[in-house]
Amino acid sequence: MTPKPITSPSNQIIKDIKALEMRKRRKETNLFLVEGLRSVIEGVELGSTLKYIAYHTNIKDKDELKRCVSYCNDCGGYALEVNDLVLEKLSRKDNPQSVIGVFTQTFHKLENIDKNDTGRNYITLEKIRDPGNLGTIIRTIDAIGAHGVILIDQCCDPYSVETVRATMGSIFSVPIFQTTLDEFKIWSKDWQGDVIGTTLQSSVDFREITPKKPLLLMMGNEQAGLSEDLRQLATYCIRLPMNGRADSLNLSVATGICLYALLEPWK
Amino acid sequence: MTPKPITSPSNQIIKDIKALEMRKRRKETNLFLVEGLRSVIEGVELGSTLKYIAYHTNIKDKDELKRCVSYCNDCGGYALEVNDLVLEKLSRKDNPQSVIGVFTQTFHKLENIDKNDTGRNYITLEKIRDPGNLGTIIRTIDAIGAHGVILIDQCCDPYSVETVRATMGSIFSVPIFQTTLDEFKIWSKDWQGDVIGTTLQSSVDFREITPKKPLLLMMGNEQAGLSEDLRQLATYCIRLPMNGRADSLNLSVATGICLYALLEPWK
Repeated sequence: MTPKPITSPSNQIIKDIKALEMRKRRKETNLFLVEGLRSVIEGVELGSTLKYIAYHTNIKDKDELKRCVSYCNDCGGYALEVNDLVLEKLSRKDNPQSVIGVFTQTFHKLENIDKNDTGRNYITLEKIRDPGNLGTIIRTIDAIGAHGVILIDQCCDPYSVETVRATMGSIFSVPIFQTTLDEFKIWSKDWQGDVIGTTLQSSVDFREITPKKPLLLMMGNEQAGLSEDLRQLATYCIRLPMNGRADSLNLSVATGICLYALLEPWK
Repeated sequence: MTPKPITSPSNQIIKDIKALEMRKRRKETNLFLVEGLRSVIEGVELGSTLKYIAYHTNIKDKDELKRCVSYCNDCGGYALEVNDLVLEKLSRKDNPQSVIGVFTQTFHKLENIDKNDTGRNYITLEKIRDPGNLGTIIRTIDAIGAHGVILIDQCCDPYSVETVRATMGSIFSVPIFQTTLDEFKIWSKDWQGDVIGTTLQSSVDFREITPKKPLLLMMGNEQAGLSEDLRQLATYCIRLPMNGRADSLNLSVATGICLYALLEPWK
């Protein structure tokens, strides 16, 4: 399929792509926006379905881009050659990207998780609110080699532009699960490893434990922390000691520190 | 001084406060915006100069607010009773706060740092670009009880609204230093503890070392990492091992993991 050059930001396809910045529209279409060639390549390499790829005329001969365009065509998608004006409309103002991809969202099912596989550790987030935190945690999960993220109850959308941006491409390699508290309670009952919660109040220092794998690490909401319901599911709850004036850490920082201590990726 | 009730977002004082969202204006006035009562209280408790405090009519009788208003008057500042409209103009749209403070910026000088004080550890950031990362790192420094942050060359503004928001009040308790690479090179020469850099390439695992205090930890730019100039100043460079597909961590997460491992706040 020959790419169609588009120069007007008010073109209907461009408007449709732009509309994916809204959660409502993402839900209706099951699609999401990815900014930048590097992240789009991640999606292509990991076999996600690419519905649209919009790229700047001046990179059309780049080999990496050509591979993405060819892959998009194989997916039955549309490749769109565009100009500055269109890319400015589709991506962030302060740092417009020369490639935008539109991929299909993927959600996985809890019942497909092997609760006995000691090589597969999961992170559970309860009512997480900040898209940047969620994206950063997905990136950390990917870097450390944990296996997936389980979102409990109403969380921010893992496929929002801000979350996807913060994942730096890891949105494609970390399986995402969505569930409710009730479903999670039942499902986690026969988890074979340790279920660990984090709280400010707990007296178990995070350095004192060596968890039984597979690990199920539970992190709470940015303001409220982990709910009593989830605390009761935990083998134990841990805390991160603090010496200073501030009495809490950013959620994605706390998650990174816990994961490095509990999963010991240097072993 | 009796508070002046303001109901119009186009009031000149409100416009002047709003203008502090711009770096240029912050530079000219040496002031910055703080959102939320909790963070304003931090500034008051730590003795920062409060130039303006704008608060919603419906919390005017709250004791904590009254203390802040009284402190503002002591500073020679202005307390402004305002309505929803004005607060919506002054704070973020998605989560408007009922209190906004305007404080004086504080920058500290490198020559006032005691290089022999083993209880005072510092974090150096080179050309950091993301305000959220900078604010989150300042919050972590505060929580772990490190002593200050040194910004090298052109960094994002520590007093931007986004950075201050991410510090969650720690902007007042963590001293901020701004310097150039050349000045830092000379100043750091007789640092009495270890100077540690972080790189993706280094072969020293961050777990293998016990740094000599005081620690001077150097973190590089989000994209480029630590410059060769700074690497050459390091006693050694460390890396965070990764097992997964992603080959790097978010800067504020990496900083948190290093600080927890190197400063061991549980001891």
